[in-house]
Amino acid sequence: MSDFQNLLPINGSWKTDVTNWIQEDIPSFDFGGFVVGTDAKGATLLCKADGVLCGIPFAQEVYDQCGLQVEWLYKEGVMLKPSETETGKIPIAKIHGPARNILQAERLSLNILSRSSGIATASRTIIEKARESGYTGTIAGTRKTTPGLRRLEKYSMLVGGCDTHRYDLSSMVMLKDNHIWSTGSISKAVGSARSVCGFAVKIEVECQSEEEADEAISSGADVIMLDNFTNEELKICARSLKTRWKGEKNFLLECSGGLTLQNIDSYLSNDIDIYSTSSIHQGTKAIDFSLKIDH
Amino acid sequence: MSDFQNLLPINGSWKTDVTNWIQEDIPSFDFGGFVVGTDAKGATLLCKADGVLCGIPFAQEVYDQCGLQVEWLYKEGVMLKPSETETGKIPIAKIHGPARNILQAERLSLNILSRSSGIATASRTIIEKARESGYTGTIAGTRKTTPGLRRLEKYSMLVGGCDTHRYDLSSMVMLKDNHIWSTGSISKAVGSARSVCGFAVKIEVECQSEEEADEAISSGADVIMLDNFTNEELKICARSLKTRWKGEKNFLLECSGGLTLQNIDSYLSNDIDIYSTSSIHQGTKAIDFSLKIDH
Amino acid sequence: MSDFQNLLPINGSWKTDVTNWIQEDIPSFDFGGFVVGTDAKGATLLCKADGVLCGIPFAQEVYDQCGLQVEWLYKEGVMLKPSETETGKIPIAKIHGPARNILQAERLSLNILSRSSGIATASRTIIEKARESGYTGTIAGTRKTTPGLRRLEKYSMLVGGCDTHRYDLSSMVMLKDNHIWSTGSISKAVGSARSVCGFAVKIEVECQSEEEADEAISSGADVIMLDNFTNEELKICARSLKTRWKGEKNFLLECSGGLTLQNIDSYLSNDIDIYSTSSIHQGTKAIDFSLKIDH
Amino acid sequence: MSDFQNLLPINGSWKTDVTNWIQEDIPSFDFGGFVVGTDAKGATLLCKADGVLCGIPFAQEVYDQCGLQVEWLYKEGVMLKPSETETGKIPIAKIHGPARNILQAERLSLNILSRSSGIATASRTIIEKARESGYTGTIAGTRKTTPGLRRLEKYSMLVGGCDTHRYDLSSMVMLKDNHIWSTGSISKAVGSARSVCGFAVKIEVECQSEEEADEAISSGADVIMLDNFTNEELKICARSLKTRWKGEKNFLLECSGGLTLQNIDSYLSNDIDIYSTSSIHQGTKAIDFSLKIDH
Amino acid sequence: MSDFQNLLPINGSWKTDVTNWIQEDIPSFDFGGFVVGTDAKGATLLCKADGVLCGIPFAQEVYDQCGLQVEWLYKEGVMLKPSETETGKIPIAKIHGPARNILQAERLSLNILSRSSGIATASRTIIEKARESGYTGTIAGTRKTTPGLRRLEKYSMLVGGCDTHRYDLSSMVMLKDNHIWSTGSISKAVGSARSVCGFAVKIEVECQSEEEADEAISSGADVIMLDNFTNEELKICARSLKTRWKGEKNFLLECSGGLTLQNIDSYLSNDIDIYSTSSIHQGTKAIDFSLKIDH
Amino acid sequence: MSDFQNLLPINGSWKTDVTNWIQEDIPSFDFGGFVVGTDAKGATLLCKADGVLCGIPFAQEVYDQCGLQVEWLYKEGVMLKPSETETGKIPIAKIHGPARNILQAERLSLNILSRSSGIATASRTIIEKARESGYTGTIAGTRKTTPGLRRLEKYSMLVGGCDTHRYDLSSMVMLKDNHIWSTGSISKAVGSARSVCGFAVKIEVECQSEEEADEAISSGADVIMLDNFTNEELKICARSLKTRWKGEKNFLLECSGGLTLQNIDSYLSNDIDIYSTSSIHQGTKAIDFSLKIDH
Repeated sequence: MSDFQNLLPINGSWKTDVTNWIQEDIPSFDFGGFVVGTDAKGATLLCKADGVLCGIPFAQEVYDQCGLQVEWLYKEGVMLKPSETETGKIPIAKIHGPARNILQAERLSLNILSRSSGIATASRTIIEKARESGYTGTIAGTRKTTPGLRRLEKYSMLVGGCDTHRYDLSSMVMLKDNHIWSTGSISKAVGSARSVCGFAVKIEVECQSEEEADEAISSGADVIMLDNFTNEELKICARSLKTRWKGEKNFLLECSGGLTLQNIDSYLSNDIDIYSTSSIHQGTKAIDFSLKIDH
Repeated sequence: MSDFQNLLPINGSWKTDVTNWIQEDIPSFDFGGFVVGTDAKGATLLCKADGVLCGIPFAQEVYDQCGLQVEWLYKEGVMLKPSETETGKIPIAKIHGPARNILQAERLSLNILSRSSGIATASRTIIEKARESGYTGTIAGTRKTTPGLRRLEKYSMLVGGCDTHRYDLSSMVMLKDNHIWSTGSISKAVGSARSVCGFAVKIEVECQSEEEADEAISSGADVIMLDNFTNEELKICARSLKTRWKGEKNFLLECSGGLTLQNIDSYLSNDIDIYSTSSIHQGTKAIDFSLKIDH
Repeated sequence: MSDFQNLLPINGSWKTDVTNWIQEDIPSFDFGGFVVGTDAKGATLLCKADGVLCGIPFAQEVYDQCGLQVEWLYKEGVMLKPSETETGKIPIAKIHGPARNILQAERLSLNILSRSSGIATASRTIIEKARESGYTGTIAGTRKTTPGLRRLEKYSMLVGGCDTHRYDLSSMVMLKDNHIWSTGSISKAVGSARSVCGFAVKIEVECQSEEEADEAISSGADVIMLDNFTNEELKICARSLKTRWKGEKNFLLECSGGLTLQNIDSYLSNDIDIYSTSSIHQGTKAIDFSLKIDH
Repeated sequence: MSDFQNLLPINGSWKTDVTNWIQEDIPSFDFGGFVVGTDAKGATLLCKADGVLCGIPFAQEVYDQCGLQVEWLYKEGVMLKPSETETGKIPIAKIHGPARNILQAERLSLNILSRSSGIATASRTIIEKARESGYTGTIAGTRKTTPGLRRLEKYSMLVGGCDTHRYDLSSMVMLKDNHIWSTGSISKAVGSARSVCGFAVKIEVECQSEEEADEAISSGADVIMLDNFTNEELKICARSLKTRWKGEKNFLLECSGGLTLQNIDSYLSNDIDIYSTSSIHQGTKAIDFSLKIDH
Repeated sequence: MSDFQNLLPINGSWKTDVTNWIQEDIPSFDFGGFVVGTDAKGATLLCKADGVLCGIPFAQEVYDQCGLQVEWLYKEGVMLKPSETETGKIPIAKIHGPARNILQAERLSLNILSRSSGIATASRTIIEKARESGYTGTIAGTRKTTPGLRRLEKYSMLVGGCDTHRYDLSSMVMLKDNHIWSTGSISKAVGSARSVCGFAVKIEVECQSEEEADEAISSGADVIMLDNFTNEELKICARSLKTRWKGEKNFLLECSGGLTLQNIDSYLSNDIDIYSTSSIHQGTKAIDFSLKIDH
Repeated sequence: MSDFQNLLPINGSWKTDVTNWIQEDIPSFDFGGFVVGTDAKGATLLCKADGVLCGIPFAQEVYDQCGLQVEWLYKEGVMLKPSETETGKIPIAKIHGPARNILQAERLSLNILSRSSGIATASRTIIEKARESGYTGTIAGTRKTTPGLRRLEKYSMLVGGCDTHRYDLSSMVMLKDNHIWSTGSISKAVGSARSVCGFAVKIEVECQSEEEADEAISSGADVIMLDNFTNEELKICARSLKTRWKGEKNFLLECSGGLTLQNIDSYLSNDIDIYSTSSIHQGTKAIDFSLKIDH
C-alpha cells in the first residue's frame, strides 16, 4: 500500500507554512507555556467524530517543529468510527515531550487534522456512493480551495479517493468562454495555448454544445468539459462524442457545475470520464479531534 | 458607521499573504493569461447565495496587487438575498482592467469572499437568534481557525456581529486543567501567569465546579469559564457567583463546549457574559460568488 | 523558580531573526573563518561589568545555529559583580566547537547579551529602589523599543523584574487625546474600541483631569492613565478615584511621563498601580561581555 | 502577435527574486550611488553581439523597482545583428531617471538580458536548423536549468521558439529506470503514478526497447522516451510503434540524450514528436549588452 | 552638499525591515485605528531634546509604507537645539494623511529617529572634541551594533561625522590573536587571508608589540591595530613604525579599546590614523521626539 | 591545505537558497517520489567530463536538506579526467538514503555541480596558461555573475585559482566615467567616495590615460584600471606609472575589457597586478555529472 506522504517535498514551503502557523498563534510570548514549564509529559490524541483520518504528515511536522515524539496508532486514510465505541473517542496517537511544547502544538495540530479529515471524509463518501451506483470513472475536486491551504486540501482529496483535478494555472490549461471570446474561436484559443504550454501540459476546453465539443476535439484539446447540459442531454452528448471520434482522437469528457453528494447520482454515466465538484472540500464539516495530557 | 477595514494594518503580513496566495495559483506560467492577453475588459462580481457580504478589504488587496480598478456596489456587512431576485444573482462590484489580470484575480478573490462571507453569515445568524431570545451578552468564536487564515476569520466574526475571543496564545491567558495540574493549584497557576503577563493582559480560568470558580476569582482571574455543567447547573452556578462576589471582585463568566445554532437557546442566560462556539467559523457553508467578464 | 525562556515559542520568527542577524554579519564570505579553519576549540564567555545576566536563550540560539556546545555557569537573571573579583571578569559559559564556528557566533552573541543585560540591569535597579521606598505596585516599560527587538527587550524587562506593559497595538487598547478628539468623547471612544476588541482585551484611557478619569471609569475602561499631573495632584487624584469608585468599578491607575531612576521616588504612591517608563530599556548602558578562545 | 510577458504572474516570487538580486549587489551601502547623486540622467541600453533579444519583462522589473522610465526600441524575440552595423552596437532602449538609480539597475539588468538572450539565441538557432532539415515537430529543453532561474530560462526557450518540456517534478510525471525497478514493472509504475497524478497530468516513460515502449503505451503512458537507441534504430522503432498503435492508443514519441546543434541532424525524423536537449540553455554563450549614461 | 540617503539601495531588505517593524507592532488588529478612522489629518513631528537630526530616510520609508505625505523642515545631519527655544520643542516635519495611518506610523518612526539621532549626536560630539584637540584623522565605530540595525547605526555614525569601520565579516579582514594562534604566525595568517580575500579587500592585524607590527606590515597588512599599549607607548610605537617604513610600505595605524568621549584626549596623536570606539553607538542616549495630530 | 567551504557562513541565506531551489522543482507534489517510495537505496554520483570538481558544499547542503548520507571520494578543487578512463566516468560520491529522497536531490545537485565545476575549470585553465607565460599576478572575475548565484560563482572562481574581484557595490568602490562626469573631476569623485566608504574600503578608478591615472593615484585611489589601451600602450603606461610613483604612493594596476583565454597572452605583463575577465564565469561550459541508483 502506498504512502501518500511521499507526495510531499522533503523540504520546502509546506514546512515553512507550519512555522508561520506556529508564529500566527504566538506573536510575542506564550504565557501559558511559562505556567506549565518543561516537565516531560505524555499526551493522547483522540478522534471524537466518525470520518477518514487525514493530515498526519502535516500534523507530524507540527510535532517535529515543537520537539515532540509521536507514535501514531492508525494510518492515514483509515475510516474511524468513534461513535460506535463506548467513550465516543478513539486514541489515534501517543505524544511525548515537555508540557509547554505539547500545549504549543495542540491547537494547530488539531486545526489541521479536523480540516484535512473533513475533506478526506467528504471525498470518501462521494466516491463510495458513485461506486455503489456503478460509476467507474473519476470524481475530482476543483480550484475553489482555501487560500494558502491548497496543498493540504488537494492532498486530502487524494487520501479520500478523489482526483485533485488541475492544481493551479500552471498545470493543465483550462479554456473557458472568456478565453474563447478574446481569441475569436475555440481552435484559435487551443492553438495559442499549445504554442506556450507545449506537449507536456494538457488543455481542457469548456463547451456549451456538441458543435463546440467537436471543434475543441479536432483542435487537439485533451479534455472536454460539457457545461450547461441537463443530465439527459449530457449523457446523450457524451455517448455521441465518444462514438463519433473513436479511433481518431483521444480525449476525456468532464462534467461539472453544482454537483453534490445529494444530486450526483442523476448525472453519473460511464461515458463521462470525470465529474468535478467543490462540495468535497469547500465548507466540509470539520472532524472533531482533541489532545489530552495524561495525568 | 464604522469601517471594519480600519482594523487592518496599512502594510504587513496580510498583504504578503495575498501575494503568496497569487503565487500558490501560478507557480510558473499562466498559460491562460497568454491566451487572453491584455485587452481592457470590464467584469462583474456576482453574489449567488444569501448571506452577509464579507471580506472586501482582502479581495480588494487581490485586485490591487493584480492592477485592477474596482467599484463596490455594496458595503461590508450587508445582508444580500439573491434568492429573492429574479436571476438569483446580485452584482456586487464592477471590475476594470486587462483581461489576463482579471482572470488571475478571479479564483483567489472568489475563494476569499466565499469563506469570509460564510463565517460572517453564520455569526450574524447566531447572534440574531440569541438577541431574539433576549440574550444581551456576547457570542464569541474560538481559536479553532484555519491555519494561516486567523486574521480573515476573526475579522469575519466581527463583521457578522460576534466577538473574536482571544486572538492567540500571546493575548488573554487561558488556564485549563493541564496548566493547573502542573502548578498544583488554581491560585498558583494564576499567580504564575500574572507574574509574566502583567497588568495589561487578562487571565481566564477554566473551572469544573463552583469551588474552583471561587478560587479563581479570589486569585484575580478576569474571566471564569464554566466547563462541564449541564445547562441548569450552569445557570444556577452563574447566578450564585455573580451574587456572592458582587462589589468585591470584577470578573466575567463564559460558557463553552459544543454550542451550536441549534442548541444554544437552552444555555442562554444573562448571568453568563460570553458564550463561545467554533460553529460560527469552522466548517461553515461557503457563500457562492462568481466573476463574469462583460461581453 | 521559573524559567523565562519558556515564554518563547519553540519555533518561529525569533529564531529566523537570529539567522538574519548572522546573515547581516556575513553577506558573502567569512574570510577570517577560512583562516582559522575547523579545529575543535574551547572558549570562555566572560562578563566584564556589573549587572543582571540576561539574554541567554537568544545567545543560545546563536550558538545552536552555529553548531556549538555551550555550558552556562550562571542562570538567567543572576546579578553578577565582576568589579568585585580580582580579574574584573567572571566566566559565565564554556563553549566548544570548531574555531570558525566560535568566531562566527562571537560578535552577535555578545551584542545580544550586552543589550539584554543592560535592560535587565536598569529594570532591576529601578524596581529595587521602588521597593526600598515601600512601593508595592508595578513598574513597567513602554512601546519605545528598538525596531525589530521588541521581544528581546520586553523579555529583558521581565527578567529584570518589571512589567512589559502592552506589547503592541493589538494588545491592550490605549486611547489618547487623538482618539478622543476624533470620536467626540471618552465614552464614545471606549464604546467604539470595545465593539471590536471585545471582552478579552483591556482598554486604557489617558486622562488629563479627574473628570475625564470619572468618565473613562464609568465607560468601562480597565486602566486609567493620569497624565500631566504634578506629583502632589497625582496622589490626591488617585486617592480620590480609588475611594469614590470602590465596590462599584474595577480599574487600575497608571502614572507615566518622564519618569527616571532619579525622579521616580517623588511620584511613588501605592494608590497608583503602575508606573511606566522607557528609561529602563531606551538608551540603557550596555553590559560588557567578551569571548576568548582558550589556548 | 503574442506577448510572452503575459505568461508571467502579475505579482509573485519572480518580482521578489528581482528584489533579492538587487539586495545581492548592495548588502549594505552603495558608495558609488552617493558619489553620483540623484541628478536626472538619460541612458542608452546597447546590444553589442548578434542574437535574439530576450528577457525584457525581467529587465523591466529591475528598472521598475529602481524607479526608472524605459522606452524599448525593439520587441522581445527580435533577432538583432549589431555585427552588421557600423558601430557594432544597436541601441535597444532609452532609460531616464536619477543617476544613482540607473547605476544601481545597470549590472543586474545587463546580467539578466545577456543570459536570457543567450538561451533564446541558441533555441532559435537549433529550431531554424531543424526546420531547414524538414523537421516539423518540437525541440524542447530540459530540467537542467540554473538553480533559481528556471522561470527565466524556460521563458527564454519559448521566446527562442523551443518547447519548455516539463517544468518541474509536479508537472508531467517522468518514469525512468529507477522508478520502474522500484515498482517491478512499467505497468505497475504507470498505474501507481496515475493513482495520484490523476487525469490532468501526463505521464512519460523512458524505454530501452520496443517491448518496453509497447508495455508503456498499453499502460496508458502519454509520452514515450526512446533511450539508448542508435539513430537508425531510433527511426525504425518510431515508425514501427506509430504504425502498430495507430487508432488504438494516443501517445507522443521523444528522443533525448546528448543532442546538440552539431549532431541533431542525423537524429531528426518526423515520426519523433519531440527532441529534447539541454544544449539550448546550459552553458550557452552570453549575449553582450551595455548601458551608457548620455553625456 | 551630499545626501547620505543616496547610500541606501533603492529597494531591498532595509525596506522589508520597515514592513516587518510595522508588523511587529500590529500582529493582528489595530483597535485604535478602528476608533480614529480615516479622516484626513495634519500632524507635526517635534524634536524635544538637543542633538543631531538623523534617520530621515528610514522614517520617510515608514511614512511611505503608511501612505502619508511628509514635508521635512530640517535636513539630515542638522544640529537642533530645542532647549534654547521657548517651548522646548522644534517642529521638524509636517505630516498629512488619514488619522489611523498617522497613528500606525507614529511610534515606529519616533523609535527610529530617537535611536538614529542619538548615535549621530554622540558621533558628532566626539569628532568635534577631537578636532578641537588638533586631531586630523579618523574616529570610527565598531561591529558592536544592535542586531538587525547595523545599517541604520553605521549610517548614523556617518551622518554624525565618524567612520563606519569595517561593515561585516565579508568586508575588511581583521586578524586577531585567535586567528594567528591557529595558523602559527602573523605572516601565515595574512597570507592565508589574502589567498581568499584577494586584492580588493583590506587586511587588518591586531598587534601586541612593535615586533608584531613589523611582521604584519612586511606581510602586506593594510591596517595595523595597536592593542594593549599605554597611551605613551602607543604614541612612541606609532611614530617609530611610521618613520621606519616610510617609502617602503603603505599601512594605516589604528588604536582601539575602551575609548570614550571622556578619555580619548589622552590617546590622540596624528601618527595614529584611526581611533575606533563603540561608545558612539552602543548605549547612546536616545533623542526625544514626539508626534502630535493638529487639532 | 585549506578548505574553501570555511568561507561560507554556517547558517544563512545560501542555505535558504537551497530550500528555495528544492521548492522551485516541486511546487506542489512529487508524483515520482510517490512511485518509488522510501526504500533505502545506494546511489553513485559520477563525473562524465574533464574538469575541476567544484560546488561540493552546496551539493552537500542539498543532500543534507533531503536527508541523505554522502561520502565524497574526491576533494573540492581536484582536476578529474574521466576521458582518460575506460568507462568515461569517475565515481565521485556514494549516496545513501530513501529512494524518493535521492531522486528529489538528484537534478538540483547535478545542476549545481555542473555549473560550479564549469567555472572552476575555466578559472583553472586561464590561470595555468598565464603562469606558463610567466605571469605572477592575479587573474580575477567580474560582477557579471548570474543573478542569485553570485556566491556560488565567486566561490568557484576561488576554487579554480582566480580572484573574485570586488563582490558587490558595498565592497571596493569602482569609479567609472559616469561617476567622474557627475562630480567634475577624478579627485572630487575619489574624495566624495572616501568620505563615506572610509578607511576600510578600497577605491578603484577607471582611467583612460596616464594623466588620469596620475590624478587618481595622487587623490588616493587604491587601484587604477587602465581602460581602452592597446596592449603595447598598456605595458608602457604601466611601467611608467610604477616607476614614477615608487616609494610615494601605493596602488595596484588592473587591466580589463574583452580578455579571454585566447587573447590574454598578448596583454600579460608583470607590471599589471590584476587582469579581470568575465570569460571565466559567464557562458562557461557545464561539466557533465550524473547520479545512478545502484541496483
